[in-house]
Amino acid sequence: MTDAVNRHWIYRSRPDDRLTPEHFEWCTAPRPRPAPGEVLVRVQALSVDPSQRVWMAGPSYRPMLLPGEVMASYAVGQVVQSQSPDFAPGDRVEGDLGWQDFACRAASALRRRDAARPLEQLVGVLGITGATAHVGLFDIGRPRPGEQVLVSGAAGAVGSIAVQLAKKAGCRVVAVAGGPHKAQMLRELGADAVVDYKAGALRADLKRALPKGIDVFFDNVAGAVLEAALPSMNIGGRVVCCGAVSAYDAGQAPPGPRGVPALLIARRLTMAGFVVLDDALRREAAEAALAAWLDDGTLQAPVQVVPGLKNAPQALIDLLAGGNTGKMMVRLD
Amino acid sequence: MTDAVNRHWIYRSRPDDRLTPEHFEWCTAPRPRPAPGEVLVRVQALSVDPSQRVWMAGPSYRPMLLPGEVMASYAVGQVVQSQSPDFAPGDRVEGDLGWQDFACRAASALRRRDAARPLEQLVGVLGITGATAHVGLFDIGRPRPGEQVLVSGAAGAVGSIAVQLAKKAGCRVVAVAGGPHKAQMLRELGADAVVDYKAGALRADLKRALPKGIDVFFDNVAGAVLEAALPSMNIGGRVVCCGAVSAYDAGQAPPGPRGVPALLIARRLTMAGFVVLDDALRREAAEAALAAWLDDGTLQAPVQVVPGLKNAPQALIDLLAGGNTGKMMVRLD
Repeated sequence: MTDAVNRHWIYRSRPDDRLTPEHFEWCTAPRPRPAPGEVLVRVQALSVDPSQRVWMAGPSYRPMLLPGEVMASYAVGQVVQSQSPDFAPGDRVEGDLGWQDFACRAASALRRRDAARPLEQLVGVLGITGATAHVGLFDIGRPRPGEQVLVSGAAGAVGSIAVQLAKKAGCRVVAVAGGPHKAQMLRELGADAVVDYKAGALRADLKRALPKGIDVFFDNVAGAVLEAALPSMNIGGRVVCCGAVSAYDAGQAPPGPRGVPALLIARRLTMAGFVVLDDALRREAAEAALAAWLDDGTLQAPVQVVPGLKNAPQALIDLLAGGNTGKMMVRLD
Repeated sequence: MTDAVNRHWIYRSRPDDRLTPEHFEWCTAPRPRPAPGEVLVRVQALSVDPSQRVWMAGPSYRPMLLPGEVMASYAVGQVVQSQSPDFAPGDRVEGDLGWQDFACRAASALRRRDAARPLEQLVGVLGITGATAHVGLFDIGRPRPGEQVLVSGAAGAVGSIAVQLAKKAGCRVVAVAGGPHKAQMLRELGADAVVDYKAGALRADLKRALPKGIDVFFDNVAGAVLEAALPSMNIGGRVVCCGAVSAYDAGQAPPGPRGVPALLIARRLTMAGFVVLDDALRREAAEAALAAWLDDGTLQAPVQVVPGLKNAPQALIDLLAGGNTGKMMVRLD
């Protein structure tokens, strides 16, 4: 990389089902220059998120990604040049910077971050995914001490934080994840039990791990895990609909889980979706709480760092296949 | 009927799928006598409810119905003889009295009702179904003036009240029902538009009737109607999971609606079930409000009265097939 060149990944075509490297194209262009009101940012770390696959499928909480655009991505970087009084060179910022070395953005599209924090924290537990765990668990899940909490996709960026926050709330926490490596990590993070969804007896294993049923289900996965968990929900239970990663990398939307809405009625359940970006102040509160727990050593923030912009497509593909433990990020060279 | 005999319907066998007359058996027995603390009630009117089919399928908010029992039913009747200081002959009471001429019940299992009110009101709009519409719409749906409300099963006991309450809340109300007769009734009750789910173009018809989307969906039906409505839900919308009558008279539970949970996340939707019996004080508040509106003439309470205990099984079978408009009840001879 030279400072004169902006390497970037173009989102080339919309996947019909599974995302592959062919959906992206590696390009170079001259480094962009900020217009008045804009800021030039050197991208330092990309957040790799299942939601990036959702952006390709259609409009969601943001417009659909269009082929030909630089691939969108939350990222953290450093201000190189500023045409705005709001930022100065050296400032650490966050925003939708995309898969590229340099991004020009309106100052209003950037958010200042603490330059003293490691990038791993800013992109992970103190980024969108950590706040998502906090808001989803506490605002939608509303766990009470002694309740039973199930977390699916528990080894992922959101799940690994949600598991620890539910323990802080005084709950018994059961984690769903695939394979012994993730199970080991989750036990170290404090999970009281781990259910391996790849073991082939999901419903029975959930029942065994949750003899008192489920009061709060923090669901990142949907699909078979959601369907298997619903019959264990206790009266008045809450399902935090955080993600549906089992369905993202597919074509047509799958049928919904059996038991919706009949079980919702019989058990007086609430299922609710949310988007952490809706409430900036709430998100700041989450970040402050998470930062304090990081600093006092009572919160772990597992990360998986992929080196090099060149590897961004493969990182996202791996993530969608469940290959990550903790927050996956791409560190630019 | 003579006063010495208690005619009754026994629930004979559990239906595998569709309920038929063969699942019930007509019997007679001597009139029961109340033990100390009990009350003998002459049953006057039976509430015919889709939930009665749910009670056969498994435990829900009440234990599963067991073959050999008198068929359970909410009903209103008159106290004939009392071994409790809480009730006296002539009192009007409500409870799970069953499909029979006389029921002996513990005084604590009965609820006093206003003897001056017509049975049609006590069983219908001032009974469980009216309160269900009130609690579901206002506590779960939380409609705000100007919002778009969709009600499915709108011609039924709960739906016909929910439509009118949503109009009172200042909303635009679209009703889903089958056939021109129900549509006519719903327009007379104030529905701004009616969608006929039997017309074969449900999704397109819903979109046309709801150009501003749906803020509150009061769903009594589930199945295809729920699946077709979800993509029209606006950001922050609420789905009131009140019933799933499309699935009750079937064998295995059908798959859930496509879009759960992905649309819940993207649109920040809440889906919640509830059971009106959970909160006696809330139910009383609903009844008081509904009674006031009945009395000032601003609330209509359509009923369909089936004469004779003998016809109770067919009334329930017809109800499950969507044959009723308004509250269906059986008036005992």
